Amino acid sequence: MPSIAIDMDETIADPITKARSWYYRDYGTIFSEDQLRGKSLSEAVPPEHKGIIHQYLNTPGFFRDLPVYPDAQRVIAELNKKYKVYIVSAAMEFPNSLMDKISWLQDNFPFLTWRQYCLCGDKSLVQTDYMIDDLIRNFQFFKGKPLLFTGPHNIHIEGYDRILNWEDAAARLL
Amino acid sequence: MPSIAIDMDETIADPITKARSWYYRDYGTIFSEDQLRGKSLSEAVPPEHKGIIHQYLNTPGFFRDLPVYPDAQRVIAELNKKYKVYIVSAAMEFPNSLMDKISWLQDNFPFLTWRQYCLCGDKSLVQTDYMIDDLIRNFQFFKGKPLLFTGPHNIHIEGYDRILNWEDAAARLL
Repeated sequence: MPSIAIDMDETIADPITKARSWYYRDYGTIFSEDQLRGKSLSEAVPPEHKGIIHQYLNTPGFFRDLPVYPDAQRVIAELNKKYKVYIVSAAMEFPNSLMDKISWLQDNFPFLTWRQYCLCGDKSLVQTDYMIDDLIRNFQFFKGKPLLFTGPHNIHIEGYDRILNWEDAAARLL
Repeated sequence: MPSIAIDMDETIADPITKARSWYYRDYGTIFSEDQLRGKSLSEAVPPEHKGIIHQYLNTPGFFRDLPVYPDAQRVIAELNKKYKVYIVSAAMEFPNSLMDKISWLQDNFPFLTWRQYCLCGDKSLVQTDYMIDDLIRNFQFFKGKPLLFTGPHNIHIEGYDRILNWEDAAARLL
């Protein structure tokens, strides 16, 4: 059975909507889709506010109730029958997110077990047959087949096979 | 730079001494070295007490202040100069251990960073050049060089290269 490592943030979970709304609450400005094109949220805010985004992401509860990406549950339930599925999140930078991420997975992907979770600092030790991720830095040492999950921040990157959304993942992998 | 995945429990951290003393506190019996030979702690207790050991390990704080194995700090600090070191713990079965394990690593291995931590359910997705672990089940899908860290529970297992202690690891790997 081939194995597949699936990322969390901006692949199955949406932290951007919440971070934008918290930033609006605190600073009265909202990011347009345009400002986020080709950039991470930390890169889109003024340099002096970079630490604010970091603070948001390390706030207990931030990751607890994020929206799930459309079709992710249905498609990953199907993938789980044909692949060894792992959910791999480079979450260690935000230790307060770890328990929230586990609870979120238990709530939203109840067909996966704790054996399939991996919370790490750096994905360079993860080797599976496929990796679905929105950040190409996670592919740097990856020997399997990388699949770049499309988002506004990676729209300009070339040279990778892409997955456009979970419907597309189903068409590619099922 | 070659990479090396190093286990936590019964490799760099000792959870057995504490589990034994808690069991003594609760049931008035202490395990002899002999009873633990060739067995995990869960296997050494009467079957009806298996759940008790699980409860101990999932108690917040249990992993927070475990003793460090002799020479582990000094030798891993040296390994960290010559290898990409990762600390990999299949800790996901005990979600309450996760924060304790991170704090313990920060306290006892301050020369490692969060980028080097990996807390997972199953080590089958971890591929490094070497893996030091006391449980052969973690080598099942491992393609690098496994090094079995000797402990009373694995004393009867044959067919693996062993590391007897951290002094021996230094001799083998440095």
